[in-house]
Amino acid sequence: MDSQRIKPKKVVCIGGGTGTFVVLKGLKNYSYKLNAVVSMSDSGGSNKRIRDEFGLLPTSDIRQCFVALADENGGMGLMRKLFMYRFEKGNGLTGMTFGNLFMAALSDIVGSQEEAIRQTGKVLRINGNVIPVSFTNTNLYAQYEDGHIVTEEHLIDEPEHDGKLKITKLYLEPKATANPHAIKSIKEADAIIMGPGDLFTSLLPNIVVDGIAKAIEESKAKKIYVLNLMTKYGQTYNFTANDHVKTLMSYIKIKPDVVIVNNTKFIPEIVEKYEEMNEFPIKDDLIEKDYADVVREDIVSEQIVEKSSSDKLVRSLIRHDSEKLAKVLSEIIG
Amino acid sequence: MDSQRIKPKKVVCIGGGTGTFVVLKGLKNYSYKLNAVVSMSDSGGSNKRIRDEFGLLPTSDIRQCFVALADENGGMGLMRKLFMYRFEKGNGLTGMTFGNLFMAALSDIVGSQEEAIRQTGKVLRINGNVIPVSFTNTNLYAQYEDGHIVTEEHLIDEPEHDGKLKITKLYLEPKATANPHAIKSIKEADAIIMGPGDLFTSLLPNIVVDGIAKAIEESKAKKIYVLNLMTKYGQTYNFTANDHVKTLMSYIKIKPDVVIVNNTKFIPEIVEKYEEMNEFPIKDDLIEKDYADVVREDIVSEQIVEKSSSDKLVRSLIRHDSEKLAKVLSEIIG
Repeated sequence: MDSQRIKPKKVVCIGGGTGTFVVLKGLKNYSYKLNAVVSMSDSGGSNKRIRDEFGLLPTSDIRQCFVALADENGGMGLMRKLFMYRFEKGNGLTGMTFGNLFMAALSDIVGSQEEAIRQTGKVLRINGNVIPVSFTNTNLYAQYEDGHIVTEEHLIDEPEHDGKLKITKLYLEPKATANPHAIKSIKEADAIIMGPGDLFTSLLPNIVVDGIAKAIEESKAKKIYVLNLMTKYGQTYNFTANDHVKTLMSYIKIKPDVVIVNNTKFIPEIVEKYEEMNEFPIKDDLIEKDYADVVREDIVSEQIVEKSSSDKLVRSLIRHDSEKLAKVLSEIIG
Repeated sequence: MDSQRIKPKKVVCIGGGTGTFVVLKGLKNYSYKLNAVVSMSDSGGSNKRIRDEFGLLPTSDIRQCFVALADENGGMGLMRKLFMYRFEKGNGLTGMTFGNLFMAALSDIVGSQEEAIRQTGKVLRINGNVIPVSFTNTNLYAQYEDGHIVTEEHLIDEPEHDGKLKITKLYLEPKATANPHAIKSIKEADAIIMGPGDLFTSLLPNIVVDGIAKAIEESKAKKIYVLNLMTKYGQTYNFTANDHVKTLMSYIKIKPDVVIVNNTKFIPEIVEKYEEMNEFPIKDDLIEKDYADVVREDIVSEQIVEKSSSDKLVRSLIRHDSEKLAKVLSEIIG
């Protein structure tokens, strides 16, 4: 027996969207004890139906985390593919994801959505835990600089108003209570990874849950913020790197220990495509001494991913690279 | 190395409905090489939607066989439960079974329904093979003694006409070609088990597929017919045991080697419930010498199963007992 044996470090990823997917997919190959704290305020498409017709909380973000952490070996690759599958046929089925239906059926069988989520992790033999940030049935609200208020996550994500407007306040109504497992995992973590991902619809919807910001502030973990690659119309229009960090710091009252920024240039043709949608590469105006550390690395995927209607996961052309990002993160976490 | 090692006997069960479920569930605990040859002409409910909206062949009978043969240990019990699950919520989802949606999604992912069925068996770690009798997109037709013809399996099963009418001819239109794997499994079998189950909507829909009757006739296997317990209104109204065997023998041109008949009495209160639906215990008028063997045993489940709308499997009150029937079968098969 080796009493000096090193315990695996506890790493918590906070988010829920494609960005968290990329982080988890990369880090699952390292020997960390991985926990994903995932937002539960999605409201679009499949989620809306899970909420309205099944009376359950939305599970699309959870589904993505499961796919990221799922065992890909042997027959399990197929279950993983099924979990990503979106029905394109069937009256009333088109647009529904298999993964969400799987969790809805399981919730009915085992009696609660919380237990269903736990069991789903077992079925997919995930390497880590997927922890819903809250089980409160709540809605996300955003107030903009002109004073108007928008509710429902998908309308914040894809605004029907002028997307250049700044969000001045993000909150949940009714107030959401944090899942005790989320609080515990944050408090006990050696490292907390925030982002990448949509600031106002993936990362901050976790942090505005009662108790989560406080847990992050009090945690002794190394707090790492992975900056996005592009601004997002409707959320972070014209935001520089500094704007991102300042916004995050207005929701948690401490500085992150490390900010990870990409330092490679993008292919002009792809940048042009983004510009058509009013989205731009984030300008790196971070000043080293403002934070404990700014890590600048090539963390961009070389792969050019075409858009597809059948899989929400492949909708960006400029994306973080799972392996590159995981390598940088592992060097920071140790 | 032991060259005298006994190879497991090859057993083929032909059918598809609840009766086949009971046989498979019992026999999976024996060391046989089990093959289920399953009808593909279901047309009601979930099946109709799988046919019309997904352009796939109906899979409800296959689903039941998967559930019967599925690994029930460890985490697998949950997958088995999911496979039985029928949605009771969700616009356009109510009445759909999870198992059928699973196979529909998988058919799209792997490119064919045949491959999807094979892969499903792997995911559920079934003990045996589930072999669709045919991949021809066909419909079941029944002609009655008054000359009128009904199409679609569910209208034969639950007739809108006088259910006392005898079916004089059962056929598929267009003609269905047998799945070569079904033919092979029947030809190589040591034992073929036909029934129990609805004669005209579970057992015979397999036998009217081109090539299946001939394969049974030519097979050197011991042919075992497990008689039903009750007559069925619309199919076998007033049929005696002898009527059942004679009907089967009009579709396969040989006698079965063994007929298994239940010899216990039923609880009068339950029989009365059946009588209200014009269904009666089958009168045993079999004469020993007419067949190679008539085996009379207690093969009835003591369990009284209440009806439930959520699970097609538990709709009979008088049912065969999996374990008792498997024991009797194993003594015959050897």
